[in-house]
Amino acid sequence: MDTATTTCAAGDLAVLLSSSSNSTSSLAAATFLCSKFTNISNKLSDTTYAVDNTYLLFSAYLVFAMQLGFAMLCAGSVRAKNTMNIMLTNVLDAAAGAISYYLFGFAFAFGTPSNGFIGRHHSFFALSSYPERSGADFSFFLYQWAFAIAAAGITSGSIAERTQFVAYLIYSSFLTGFVYPTVSHWFWSSDGWASATRSDNNLLFGSGAIDFAGSGVVHMVGGIAGLWGALVEGPRIGRFDRSGRSVALRGHSASLVVLGTFLLWFGWYGFNPGSFLTILKSYDRSRPYYGQWSAVGRTAVTTTLSGCTAALTTLFSKRLLAGHWNVTDVCNGLLGGFAAITSGCAVVEPWAAIVCGFMASWVLIGFNWLAKKFKYDDPLEAAQLHGGCGAWGLIFTGLFATKEYVNEVYSGDWPYGLLMGGGGKLLAAQIVQIIVIVGWVTVTMGPLFYGLHKMNLLRISTEDEMAGMDMTRHGGFAYAYNDEDDVSTKPWGQMAGKVEPTSRSSTPTPPSTV
Amino acid sequence: MDTATTTCAAGDLAVLLSSSSNSTSSLAAATFLCSKFTNISNKLSDTTYAVDNTYLLFSAYLVFAMQLGFAMLCAGSVRAKNTMNIMLTNVLDAAAGAISYYLFGFAFAFGTPSNGFIGRHHSFFALSSYPERSGADFSFFLYQWAFAIAAAGITSGSIAERTQFVAYLIYSSFLTGFVYPTVSHWFWSSDGWASATRSDNNLLFGSGAIDFAGSGVVHMVGGIAGLWGALVEGPRIGRFDRSGRSVALRGHSASLVVLGTFLLWFGWYGFNPGSFLTILKSYDRSRPYYGQWSAVGRTAVTTTLSGCTAALTTLFSKRLLAGHWNVTDVCNGLLGGFAAITSGCAVVEPWAAIVCGFMASWVLIGFNWLAKKFKYDDPLEAAQLHGGCGAWGLIFTGLFATKEYVNEVYSGDWPYGLLMGGGGKLLAAQIVQIIVIVGWVTVTMGPLFYGLHKMNLLRISTEDEMAGMDMTRHGGFAYAYNDEDDVSTKPWGQMAGKVEPTSRSSTPTPPSTV
Amino acid sequence: MDTATTTCAAGDLAVLLSSSSNSTSSLAAATFLCSKFTNISNKLSDTTYAVDNTYLLFSAYLVFAMQLGFAMLCAGSVRAKNTMNIMLTNVLDAAAGAISYYLFGFAFAFGTPSNGFIGRHHSFFALSSYPERSGADFSFFLYQWAFAIAAAGITSGSIAERTQFVAYLIYSSFLTGFVYPTVSHWFWSSDGWASATRSDNNLLFGSGAIDFAGSGVVHMVGGIAGLWGALVEGPRIGRFDRSGRSVALRGHSASLVVLGTFLLWFGWYGFNPGSFLTILKSYDRSRPYYGQWSAVGRTAVTTTLSGCTAALTTLFSKRLLAGHWNVTDVCNGLLGGFAAITSGCAVVEPWAAIVCGFMASWVLIGFNWLAKKFKYDDPLEAAQLHGGCGAWGLIFTGLFATKEYVNEVYSGDWPYGLLMGGGGKLLAAQIVQIIVIVGWVTVTMGPLFYGLHKMNLLRISTEDEMAGMDMTRHGGFAYAYNDEDDVSTKPWGQMAGKVEPTSRSSTPTPPSTV
Repeated sequence: MDTATTTCAAGDLAVLLSSSSNSTSSLAAATFLCSKFTNISNKLSDTTYAVDNTYLLFSAYLVFAMQLGFAMLCAGSVRAKNTMNIMLTNVLDAAAGAISYYLFGFAFAFGTPSNGFIGRHHSFFALSSYPERSGADFSFFLYQWAFAIAAAGITSGSIAERTQFVAYLIYSSFLTGFVYPTVSHWFWSSDGWASATRSDNNLLFGSGAIDFAGSGVVHMVGGIAGLWGALVEGPRIGRFDRSGRSVALRGHSASLVVLGTFLLWFGWYGFNPGSFLTILKSYDRSRPYYGQWSAVGRTAVTTTLSGCTAALTTLFSKRLLAGHWNVTDVCNGLLGGFAAITSGCAVVEPWAAIVCGFMASWVLIGFNWLAKKFKYDDPLEAAQLHGGCGAWGLIFTGLFATKEYVNEVYSGDWPYGLLMGGGGKLLAAQIVQIIVIVGWVTVTMGPLFYGLHKMNLLRISTEDEMAGMDMTRHGGFAYAYNDEDDVSTKPWGQMAGKVEPTSRSSTPTPPSTV
Repeated sequence: MDTATTTCAAGDLAVLLSSSSNSTSSLAAATFLCSKFTNISNKLSDTTYAVDNTYLLFSAYLVFAMQLGFAMLCAGSVRAKNTMNIMLTNVLDAAAGAISYYLFGFAFAFGTPSNGFIGRHHSFFALSSYPERSGADFSFFLYQWAFAIAAAGITSGSIAERTQFVAYLIYSSFLTGFVYPTVSHWFWSSDGWASATRSDNNLLFGSGAIDFAGSGVVHMVGGIAGLWGALVEGPRIGRFDRSGRSVALRGHSASLVVLGTFLLWFGWYGFNPGSFLTILKSYDRSRPYYGQWSAVGRTAVTTTLSGCTAALTTLFSKRLLAGHWNVTDVCNGLLGGFAAITSGCAVVEPWAAIVCGFMASWVLIGFNWLAKKFKYDDPLEAAQLHGGCGAWGLIFTGLFATKEYVNEVYSGDWPYGLLMGGGGKLLAAQIVQIIVIVGWVTVTMGPLFYGLHKMNLLRISTEDEMAGMDMTRHGGFAYAYNDEDDVSTKPWGQMAGKVEPTSRSSTPTPPSTV
Repeated sequence: MDTATTTCAAGDLAVLLSSSSNSTSSLAAATFLCSKFTNISNKLSDTTYAVDNTYLLFSAYLVFAMQLGFAMLCAGSVRAKNTMNIMLTNVLDAAAGAISYYLFGFAFAFGTPSNGFIGRHHSFFALSSYPERSGADFSFFLYQWAFAIAAAGITSGSIAERTQFVAYLIYSSFLTGFVYPTVSHWFWSSDGWASATRSDNNLLFGSGAIDFAGSGVVHMVGGIAGLWGALVEGPRIGRFDRSGRSVALRGHSASLVVLGTFLLWFGWYGFNPGSFLTILKSYDRSRPYYGQWSAVGRTAVTTTLSGCTAALTTLFSKRLLAGHWNVTDVCNGLLGGFAAITSGCAVVEPWAAIVCGFMASWVLIGFNWLAKKFKYDDPLEAAQLHGGCGAWGLIFTGLFATKEYVNEVYSGDWPYGLLMGGGGKLLAAQIVQIIVIVGWVTVTMGPLFYGLHKMNLLRISTEDEMAGMDMTRHGGFAYAYNDEDDVSTKPWGQMAGKVEPTSRSSTPTPPSTV
């Protein structure tokens, strides 16, 4: 730093001050002092930008790591024969999502000027005029992109093991580029119609919906989209037997499931505490240590406690219901607890987070029971987990948000949780959020999936499903642990003649010539 | 930032200064100037909180990532048939540990008021009065929780592949909620009886024990607990043959071992440098660039050098002793080097870290030789590695801590390393630490494991051990790479009728009906 | 923070000001005020150090995570029988690299005094006089170490599955300790002969080469080194059949490939944005929000867009060329896009990053076509990807670097991209960089690999290559998913008598006695 601009030489200043009863000299002294203050102020401002951007960028990197978590969780949860397929969809969520969010999504979500429904055209498309005409910076774009691709990642789990790759590319771009950005505009933009941060203070029910990090905006959107996709496609072959009984189609690797779950947990510390966007902000001068840095830490704690409570609740309830200690169920319970606390994490007490997680576990168990009853097949339980627990999270916030935290985090004297004495307005706004998200995703993604279905672009053929998509569409099996596993020596290696070449190096030579 | 509070208008100030020979006006000028300084001071204070909390929170996230590292390391080091079991214990370390540390552990460790032995009741239990009555914040709680679960994770490795799940839940909660917090109080709390940071300066041997990031507090506690568990249980079936010769029961995946090791390495950068808790602190104005940020960086370097030296030493010594280049041995050597440097990382020179790592490798080799001699079976070498190398690390600090760094990091003119000319007081304190940790863990965890053993709650049955716990207790095998691997078609699939349902969705239908 | 040093009491100051027409008193008032400014300045300086070191350290941790990414990517891309071998080389890249970079490499790269070619002796070897005699700190050393080991990691991919372990140790230390540091001195040190940051402004072509984060310095160095290694060794057995046709030797786990790719992506956010080294730096007071924090964010965005575009381009082009949707090809395309943008990431517009990624995909496809044509076998496509796309990245920067960003990032009015109206000087410097890197690596690594080859230290025997190095050199197979997979019952388990003991615990008992 150039310290010359902020320090001073006493001798020089003394000369100025000694003659400051003379008005010219006093102006010189004042100019001298004020230039110091201005330099200090600029430097403090620079520091604030540097700290807040560091905080937001590293939070964005953590949220991005969730995409790796999704990829591993999904891979482990499907059968080995569809591993490459599901992982490719996860890589492309991030890649195609980056392009569509860069071109369209970000402008729909946060472009200015905008109306309550959507960001208007001519601003922020392909990052034009950004960040010059914005109060935010590139870090904010990166952070929002990482959120957008999380929604698409959730959906891919619901329709795993039976969806054509082309259908995947279409719905994913549509979700990331339009459906999700619109919802995020409603609840998070400064002029979204239901946002709790509307700049004109004309809030829904005088409250606005509080969905701090996206139980609704991200998790319900992804989960409900997955619900429609899975409903239109129907269950995987063999998922329910002739007499209608549920048959588990176990994932091929519990290690990948646990790896993915822990990575999602790790990334959630970017997702929830990071949603403050800044950390250098003071709340209350009377408590000198108190500011956003404390609320950020508290949010990390509520997030942890909700997930952990849900994991333990699931452990014991599944032990009672199913008779064994099931690691994948515990992982799903944990994630359900995270999805639920995501809405209220910043505005509830740590003890309330335990209530949130306890209930989230039962919500997930309940929706899984319903899914089985109605023969709904979702390989990742994504609709139940992200949709169901996400909805519970919105209601939870309407019940348990505290006055103090709402006032601090949302900078005003707004309604808060019903059970905390804050009346029913916030809860009403939360319920409206649930309804409009279900409605919006239904009217956008439902017809899309149905249209793809009618055009025979949605579900793969029975033969492909039995053989596995990796062999028929992705050039080979994901694993070859022994030489004998090589495609050319397997029974289905004889298919190699009619399937595409399996070479990693785009060789036209089929591997059966090895 | 609101720049109006820190900048000033020269014209306004000039008027005040020009009449400042008049005492009323001089007060106005002074008030004006002082309010600027106060605003700047507040803003600087906010900045310090934001920077330090950012630093501590992201360090905590890294330490949390070590739990994923443990899970993968453990999973890869056990046989495939016990993979789900060991991973579930790792997930529950974090989850059950969060609840028990939230309810009890944190208050025992850092509650105020406290005595030298333990935090007293009525403070910080379930985070009550926290952080209001503390100088720290939620970030500190999260960071300490991540440390607590690391200790439990170490222990789970020692007793892997033969321990009942219920026993695991009991010892893990006891360790995280009581045994470990007590030790951390002794050495890290501002009134722990052996702490080097006692606020009353009444230090053990006028020195206090220096265990900067926990070679003793975390690694020895976890390792000695594991030692007792593994001793009470005895070796796994087949680990020593009839003639008493050692038979390697190889882990099922070297890839998971390497993945876990690298993740632990990654997380160690939160563990060691993060243990400064803050980064914005100046040490010595005469060297303007010099402060805690430099010591933090140096700590990352010493950590790296120790681990890497231990890895290389292990590589070559194992090549000589066993005749091949062994990746899992190198991984364990690396981790031994990290466990050893964890005590002294902040107060030794980089070259000394190389000495630390070199010796740590031989300490591990020596303890592994002893383990084999005494037919001690520890699937992860956890007692040897974390207990043995951790103890070496405490002694190393007593030998190599430098005067300058001890003075800076522990803010005072305290004893330092024997070989650096600092006398034997620090070394004496370090040896006392080794003795009391071994003693405390022995008198708490020893009886616990023995009691569980007597109640037949500790070790699984011979049948379960042969079949693997995943099949008998956790609903199925962790992997299914080929359709033929499905449980229903395997020879032991015929057991499915008597074991619990294997469904991931809690279906009551046994998979043999597929 | 000690607020007493930065706040003031109005009463005290008023007394001083009221008598400040008296020159003695005015000196007292001035001293009072100036001491405040000095304290504030010191505190601001401390803050800058803390923020920048936090930024650089966490960036270094991310870059380190790329080593884990390499390990998983390499492991997944080789056949199962060589998994332990390749992972061990990745662990040792980091470990041996730490020692050689600590002892020699860092001093060669950044030691002062230095000449244009290399850092001179007697400074910074084994970190002597560091950081006291440097403007940087330990964080900078750690960051540069993480870069050095990345270069060695790239090379190990090219020569995988057929190289003796001893050869690996030799070339890796030589590359990390000498070849790479020299190149990094030329382009990144303040007196490197081709550096764009030369302190004497005597720049190559009045421009200097812009290789912001190392498309040339890291990726080309690693890739060209790999090229020579792979050329000297020749293809793996079976890689080209008798009639010369290319036969894919598929990697054993697509899951590990995807895991590694995502980890590299995650780490690249430390690699590229982190290369600013600091974040708290203002560029232009006229745009108050504008400084390095914004350029850092923009760099993360350009990095993301280039990689994602390359992934999508590869997806569709491979679909057309090879007929299937290939996840490993998409992963390689993604990494090619990252390697290419690494040079220009800080000085190009986001839209240009899309051009960069699009071309990078075709560059990779082209070089892979050439490799097949010339029967060049590179299991990781490392030379094509890091060498080829890295070179394209240098040219891209010469074409698309903008005037504004070059001026800001390189602090001066320098030449910029040809297509942006900046003339051909920068492009000329970029082409010189490509030529000298190819030349330097060729004259250093070429003879080294050739010498090892002549001494029979480079390639393993045919028997070892057929059996796999894990069995013959590393003590056993990496995986044992079923009990029957145990080494003692496999056909090649009968080799156990002559191979080294496979025990993880250095047991002298061969596993065939199990």
